[in-house]
Amino acid sequence: MSKRNVLVAQSGGPSPVINSSLQGVLEACFESDRIESVYAAHHGIEGVLLEELIDMKKQPMEEIRRLRNTPAAGAIGSCRYKLKGENSADFERIIDVFEAHDVGFFFYIGGNDSMDTANKVRELANQRSLDLTVMGVPKTIDNDLGDEERTLIDHTPGYGSCARYWANIIQNVNEENSGMCTSECVSVLQAMGRSSGFITAASRLADPDREMPLQLYLPESNLSMEQLLDNVDNELIRSGRCIVVVSESFMTDTESQLTDGFGHVEYGASKTTAMQTVVNALNQHGFPVRGQATGQVPGVLQRGVSMHASTVDREEAYILGRKAVEFALSGVNGQMVTILRTSDQPYTVRYDHVPLSAIANSVRYLPKEWIAPSGIDVTDDFIQYARPLIGDSMPKVEMEAGLQRFARIKKEFVAKKLAAYTPCNF
Amino acid sequence: MSKRNVLVAQSGGPSPVINSSLQGVLEACFESDRIESVYAAHHGIEGVLLEELIDMKKQPMEEIRRLRNTPAAGAIGSCRYKLKGENSADFERIIDVFEAHDVGFFFYIGGNDSMDTANKVRELANQRSLDLTVMGVPKTIDNDLGDEERTLIDHTPGYGSCARYWANIIQNVNEENSGMCTSECVSVLQAMGRSSGFITAASRLADPDREMPLQLYLPESNLSMEQLLDNVDNELIRSGRCIVVVSESFMTDTESQLTDGFGHVEYGASKTTAMQTVVNALNQHGFPVRGQATGQVPGVLQRGVSMHASTVDREEAYILGRKAVEFALSGVNGQMVTILRTSDQPYTVRYDHVPLSAIANSVRYLPKEWIAPSGIDVTDDFIQYARPLIGDSMPKVEMEAGLQRFARIKKEFVAKKLAAYTPCNF
Repeated sequence: MSKRNVLVAQSGGPSPVINSSLQGVLEACFESDRIESVYAAHHGIEGVLLEELIDMKKQPMEEIRRLRNTPAAGAIGSCRYKLKGENSADFERIIDVFEAHDVGFFFYIGGNDSMDTANKVRELANQRSLDLTVMGVPKTIDNDLGDEERTLIDHTPGYGSCARYWANIIQNVNEENSGMCTSECVSVLQAMGRSSGFITAASRLADPDREMPLQLYLPESNLSMEQLLDNVDNELIRSGRCIVVVSESFMTDTESQLTDGFGHVEYGASKTTAMQTVVNALNQHGFPVRGQATGQVPGVLQRGVSMHASTVDREEAYILGRKAVEFALSGVNGQMVTILRTSDQPYTVRYDHVPLSAIANSVRYLPKEWIAPSGIDVTDDFIQYARPLIGDSMPKVEMEAGLQRFARIKKEFVAKKLAAYTPCNF
Repeated sequence: MSKRNVLVAQSGGPSPVINSSLQGVLEACFESDRIESVYAAHHGIEGVLLEELIDMKKQPMEEIRRLRNTPAAGAIGSCRYKLKGENSADFERIIDVFEAHDVGFFFYIGGNDSMDTANKVRELANQRSLDLTVMGVPKTIDNDLGDEERTLIDHTPGYGSCARYWANIIQNVNEENSGMCTSECVSVLQAMGRSSGFITAASRLADPDREMPLQLYLPESNLSMEQLLDNVDNELIRSGRCIVVVSESFMTDTESQLTDGFGHVEYGASKTTAMQTVVNALNQHGFPVRGQATGQVPGVLQRGVSMHASTVDREEAYILGRKAVEFALSGVNGQMVTILRTSDQPYTVRYDHVPLSAIANSVRYLPKEWIAPSGIDVTDDFIQYARPLIGDSMPKVEMEAGLQRFARIKKEFVAKKLAAYTPCNF
């Protein structure tokens, strides 16, 4: 069997552990005698279209190992490029690039949109009788892949670290809020997750015993501003302070907002953030005690801060990257690798795979039974589900003179073999 | 000499190391045979007025030691209460409480407003012939105490940790911004510091070699939105992406904003944040390349996240707390303890004290000579000044099952000896 080349790419918004999966893919490929070159597309599918491929075997191994501690997508780049319909020039171009560089394996690290893309690439390769194995590696802080029963996947790599970020910062905000509550009594924080409340819900992990005056406004709860004002008033009368976590889509006028290539509202670019809307409503409404509402928008920090990465999440993301390669080499094709829970206590998992088509464009919401009757909390079942994902101890972060030492991947592209191409959506 | 009691209090917005100073005060007091009880005022001067005093000798020593790793002001509480004129009932009440509880030493951890208060308390004690030693312990993330020449104090405890937060998160945001720059090309972050640019400036520590497309909008630079749009356009043409750090007061209509008890605008409670103003202006303006502007407001996280605390800052804050007690016991009175730099390389300091009156209500700005000619950067002299303050290694953060284990101070008050009192500003 002749050796083939590998192409790996990332897609969509990053996570603190997306590079762990990349590291897993790379290291497993480097170990195989059936794989020749390993290319990483610069900025995901855009790099494929532009034939901008990075030779990963030319990178120092210590930099490959540092991917473990390197958050976000700066190492090889990601993108939000939306490929046009299945038979467009873009898809043909992808296959052309794969053929030109003898790519036999394509590993795509991404969310639901990406699995849809990967699936279409595989179908087109089939049509053109190209010998191509396509494997998806899941990634999204939103935890919105799969089905509510978790038969397809238990959770998505990236979520554990984002959940850990929220668990930790709500602890910090509680120290702040309780310390300053004689004058600044409502702390409002805006969490990512446009339609799924898993990230907002993770704030509860800061306080499993429910000692903090914490209220969660999940996208699934559909509460009104009037209900929020009432809830906060009640908490202020009870304890004199309140911490409010709202999902980024809370009360947002989506019609006036910017959208990305996939038509999703870009809440990071909001004309008015949910935080601002809530802070203004609270301050205008006034308080039964002294004080005011103040707001925080962590934004991309919740998906890119290595200090709060979950050790469990990092390890699982790495293993999933390796598994994708192992499955591919054993003949599996057109599948996304998955992680399935085999026990809650102790927390154990096994790895498997599902067809890309089963994941493509799926959206998982926070199960209704995990929302507490109050509508502003989650149940203990949610805590039992999410608690193991944030890990126990501090993550390793390599420091150099007070700064984080991230992987440095040289962005030198392999020689192009095709004519220049302008992607359809440029 | 008969033993006297100690009262310690915190004031104003917290820092990641304010409790290190508290720990230093407490441990030095516990070691002295001239000190009987050590009381902490619950929520600063409000706790004094309400006679809500916590007996710190009744706390387990392991919790006192955990103050080192406990950020923000939740341990004993702080406040933003503004005492009315020098001869008001509030000041008389403070002296009454001190007399009733035989307080011989008052340690006040705070910023410039607090040093003014401490000074007035001492003057009134003098007038009433009360034997009271008053010492200030500096604290503010803003680094705005003292004089530009740094003859009074080199830097303020709290600043090093806040600077470290910014150095680290700008690294993270750069990984995000460079990874996603084909569709999200301008990352806007809003930094605290209403009039002094030290916090905004600290972002430069993320990139001392100036490899990132980083622009700083300092309060001292007074740049216009038109200049910002021009600067960002130029950077986008040059590198296709940009990271913009704006101070919270940038382009803010201060007239419409809420103010605190001291008349300062409360930017945390802004009707429209500087981030929002800049993001909207950028997105409306459009870009020479594809992409959009997205925004982050870390808010209180920059003054309350232990994971990013500077080890140097923690240690200095602790020593300053101890020094305040040592100086007081040696007969120093009416002074704030200070930290003075004796060498840049290697970084060394000595501890001293200055009259409270010299610090009270002082405001230090970022020296003009530390602003680069471009107006959107700082000079290497600033880097040389600030670099040692963020420390080298990771801070110790005690973890318990994925959560930070902070000090737990029991909020049991000592028996009240005076009639109830309603503070003037309630």
